[in-house]
Amino acid sequence: MASKTPVGFIGLGNMGNPMAKNLMKHGYPLIIYDVFPDACKEFQDAGEQVVSSPADVAEKADRIITMLPTSINAIEAYSGANGILKKVKKGSLLIDSSTIDPAISKELAKEAEKMGAVFMDAPVSGGVGAARSGNLTFMVGGVEDEFAAAQELLGCMGSNVVYCGAVGTGQAAKICNNMLLAISMIGTAETMNLGIRLGLDPKLLAKILNMSSGRCWSSDSYNPVPGVMDGVPSANNYQGGFGTTLMAKDLGLAQDSATSTKSPILLGSQAHQIYRMMCAKGYSKKDFSSVFQFLREEETF
Amino acid sequence: MASKTPVGFIGLGNMGNPMAKNLMKHGYPLIIYDVFPDACKEFQDAGEQVVSSPADVAEKADRIITMLPTSINAIEAYSGANGILKKVKKGSLLIDSSTIDPAISKELAKEAEKMGAVFMDAPVSGGVGAARSGNLTFMVGGVEDEFAAAQELLGCMGSNVVYCGAVGTGQAAKICNNMLLAISMIGTAETMNLGIRLGLDPKLLAKILNMSSGRCWSSDSYNPVPGVMDGVPSANNYQGGFGTTLMAKDLGLAQDSATSTKSPILLGSQAHQIYRMMCAKGYSKKDFSSVFQFLREEETF
Amino acid sequence: MASKTPVGFIGLGNMGNPMAKNLMKHGYPLIIYDVFPDACKEFQDAGEQVVSSPADVAEKADRIITMLPTSINAIEAYSGANGILKKVKKGSLLIDSSTIDPAISKELAKEAEKMGAVFMDAPVSGGVGAARSGNLTFMVGGVEDEFAAAQELLGCMGSNVVYCGAVGTGQAAKICNNMLLAISMIGTAETMNLGIRLGLDPKLLAKILNMSSGRCWSSDSYNPVPGVMDGVPSANNYQGGFGTTLMAKDLGLAQDSATSTKSPILLGSQAHQIYRMMCAKGYSKKDFSSVFQFLREEETF
Amino acid sequence: MASKTPVGFIGLGNMGNPMAKNLMKHGYPLIIYDVFPDACKEFQDAGEQVVSSPADVAEKADRIITMLPTSINAIEAYSGANGILKKVKKGSLLIDSSTIDPAISKELAKEAEKMGAVFMDAPVSGGVGAARSGNLTFMVGGVEDEFAAAQELLGCMGSNVVYCGAVGTGQAAKICNNMLLAISMIGTAETMNLGIRLGLDPKLLAKILNMSSGRCWSSDSYNPVPGVMDGVPSANNYQGGFGTTLMAKDLGLAQDSATSTKSPILLGSQAHQIYRMMCAKGYSKKDFSSVFQFLREEETF
Repeated sequence: MASKTPVGFIGLGNMGNPMAKNLMKHGYPLIIYDVFPDACKEFQDAGEQVVSSPADVAEKADRIITMLPTSINAIEAYSGANGILKKVKKGSLLIDSSTIDPAISKELAKEAEKMGAVFMDAPVSGGVGAARSGNLTFMVGGVEDEFAAAQELLGCMGSNVVYCGAVGTGQAAKICNNMLLAISMIGTAETMNLGIRLGLDPKLLAKILNMSSGRCWSSDSYNPVPGVMDGVPSANNYQGGFGTTLMAKDLGLAQDSATSTKSPILLGSQAHQIYRMMCAKGYSKKDFSSVFQFLREEETF
Repeated sequence: MASKTPVGFIGLGNMGNPMAKNLMKHGYPLIIYDVFPDACKEFQDAGEQVVSSPADVAEKADRIITMLPTSINAIEAYSGANGILKKVKKGSLLIDSSTIDPAISKELAKEAEKMGAVFMDAPVSGGVGAARSGNLTFMVGGVEDEFAAAQELLGCMGSNVVYCGAVGTGQAAKICNNMLLAISMIGTAETMNLGIRLGLDPKLLAKILNMSSGRCWSSDSYNPVPGVMDGVPSANNYQGGFGTTLMAKDLGLAQDSATSTKSPILLGSQAHQIYRMMCAKGYSKKDFSSVFQFLREEETF
Repeated sequence: MASKTPVGFIGLGNMGNPMAKNLMKHGYPLIIYDVFPDACKEFQDAGEQVVSSPADVAEKADRIITMLPTSINAIEAYSGANGILKKVKKGSLLIDSSTIDPAISKELAKEAEKMGAVFMDAPVSGGVGAARSGNLTFMVGGVEDEFAAAQELLGCMGSNVVYCGAVGTGQAAKICNNMLLAISMIGTAETMNLGIRLGLDPKLLAKILNMSSGRCWSSDSYNPVPGVMDGVPSANNYQGGFGTTLMAKDLGLAQDSATSTKSPILLGSQAHQIYRMMCAKGYSKKDFSSVFQFLREEETF
Repeated sequence: MASKTPVGFIGLGNMGNPMAKNLMKHGYPLIIYDVFPDACKEFQDAGEQVVSSPADVAEKADRIITMLPTSINAIEAYSGANGILKKVKKGSLLIDSSTIDPAISKELAKEAEKMGAVFMDAPVSGGVGAARSGNLTFMVGGVEDEFAAAQELLGCMGSNVVYCGAVGTGQAAKICNNMLLAISMIGTAETMNLGIRLGLDPKLLAKILNMSSGRCWSSDSYNPVPGVMDGVPSANNYQGGFGTTLMAKDLGLAQDSATSTKSPILLGSQAHQIYRMMCAKGYSKKDFSSVFQFLREEETF
């Protein structure tokens, strides 16, 4: 174990922190960077090496994982004045687990290639809990020959590492899943609300849907109506889970991808707008299943 | 078996015909009526009694099943000048398997009650194939005490007879399921199309969705993309299955119910409009999963 | 003037009250009925005759105007147990100024015809202010031969009496106008909000739109952005004007008409849902231009 | 007149060609570039100077106008390997009349500023006809001090030159206007179609809308229903006018701007998707008012 070469890790936020720790558990020494020095402290105390820029990470490690909140942060970390690509070594493997626009993943891959490095996109599904327990799903896009190398590292942090195709397809898969998730969650919330107003018992309605063609993950595994299921955010005042703000962000990426590829997404667009409005109405930090509550509010005459 | 009392059956169309035959197989003599005399011929030849109005059915049978295409037909069959309620016997059990507005089911139940009869709504899910094999699902609304009596008959035609609550809730459950089905089918079609344009292989994308939170019946059991699954309408040029026109009709009922109960259905409304437009663009007789084809057409510049 | 025969008036609410008074000013004796006796008191004190049912109105007057809040109220007033049609005289002229489903107007006209009476639909545009000043617009549907007779009365209450065609077309015109109004108001609100966030001055943006192809009544005569125009509800915290609840009701009628005629209304449906949601979010009594405020709320992270 | 200094012009397409000619008519010698050499021939024959790259234009002219189809083309012309900014002279005035993402306009302005030049965005409204007759409207964003200099040139090509504010606001104004235009056009088409199906005469309905609160440019100046107005595309099988493809492009820009500023555009998004679908259904080259035809198609059962 001691002979493992160090892995760079950039972005130690809510998700990056437990992911990096899982790499440590598997015996990888880390080279750490985060724009917020406080985020690095815990790792420094644990004996990992903290450096002062993404470029410095690239100087010291030829396998780097990045986990950043937005496209802009990813561009800065790779192509910025002190970015990875300023000092990346030939043959390095760069794995971006951020959820960003697939067009930007492709762009970064091209720039990396010019420097003799390989860039792969590997966004995750599963939240902070799955990050802690090492049960994330990684959707990976990039040159197939490098997939095994990526899998070696990603397998320390996730239980499911899926190869999706050329660079950008990892993002595409993530975005597509979340768009369909948003649509079916809103659909489930509308349907449950309508059924209740038409006199159906919520548990019975959920049961009927789940044995019929209306069945979906949002109805059978994450039902948004309080009282229908235990152990889901709707049973806990919509705390925890996957926040409305994050869903709105992913739908923005889906929208951008659809616009640039001229793909009609009538319901996807509408789902984007609904989550956008929820963010403005006080739901930004609640789980995205709170759309049931958003729709449910009674009219007051 | 010979001692069974006759059952009235009104509406011998694509669905009613095989349903009535299943009652016959279980030994029930039938009293038959259809506005199109030709639809009755087959039953007359088989020795069943054909009469000339719904009222005449009610005179000869105290258990009646109706299977009609629209709310207007149901109103005519029950409340028309020669309708069931003109001659219904006290204590009769009237079961309407048509898919109609739940508000109308409630109205008919009230009128039946005035005549001392019991009206239940029992719309079905499952198409002509399930009607033939006796595998329909019935969603039943009405007085709970009468459910066992209804179940005796419905169980001859379906494998699943679910009690949903007060009169109208059978319709409500049917409408709710189909609204969520329409939303998730369109969502699946948009998502698969977007993913394909972003470079993902359709089979792989379906696999990823189906092991993730985007999973729904439309993605895992009835995928709308040709080549992804066998034995579904998308594998057969969208022939068979559940027609776009029928889906548009059910969404119209969902819309009416939502408007009258003031329930917001942002995606449900949009789904209704999309299936409405498909009907006008030559998709009316194709399976409702053809929305993938509808969205897919390429731009031509 | 004294020789004018009495006119029946049913429904003395916010709109009916000032309308009836304008008929009085023009010298018409009134036969009055309202389900709320208090609403009649003022007219009784002024010497008009108050009776105890719509049927009684029909017994004493052969020209009757009805002004009721919903389709259900109109059906009750005409076809109820003590409705107008129970005692209507042959040759009577029945004018319904309620805003209701045109399909119901047609139904009532048929029933009136059976009794030898003429029913016309004549919904109004213009609010309480226009009702007081006698400046309403009436959109009239019905037999063209009777239009002059209707115009004689309606002209006392409105400055604009437009013949629209067969019975039901008055409602159709009203519903169509309000649907387009709702769409363009929401569109104006979205556009102004987007422009402001992109750095444009609201007054300048309104000016540019109003001299360009984006111009509409909502942008040039009733701008929803506070500070852009004087004398409109947006300048007065969205008080007065045309309430969100009323707009939601009219959009529900448009939706029902579109569903029954199988007319696609993609934006009309969406506008309906948006006003429906606003009713549930505390906007029900504000002017319908408050959709700007509804969209405007800032996201809070 | 002979003493006027030359003006650079890049992009001699359908719009750029007549715009450049209007500059010539006002006595400005031109320095010409287009990626398609054929587009320059006419100008060369007329004695204007044709060069081989945007950089070469910048070397010979200190006032440059660009008129390009997409954001990508504009980025290439300004920031490409042979772009304007490679050889731009200090103090140059760069006016971009392309319709592009305002975020890109801002970016180009920053880059120009670094080179000591001034960049302004000045997109146009009005089509090829207005370009020929010199009646375009220019919406101009940029440093206010330079507006007079821009106006000198733009006034040769347009009858209306409006200062909108900081750089990017010209694009913002254009995009906002076109988004509201698309919404009100679709709304007008839905409304006219619904009204006709409810029995209203199209001309009468248009007249009623135009004297009421449903009035908008699409109903009173560009009505989409054949037979209602003369001299508009709907009177000529939707030929000429503003193509559906161009509207879809502008709505894509509106969508991008709304996503990046987190502005909810529920109807704007839907309008974008509708025009996107029309492009895929054979309407790409028809005028955007053909949405009436798109919605109008009859259902065939």
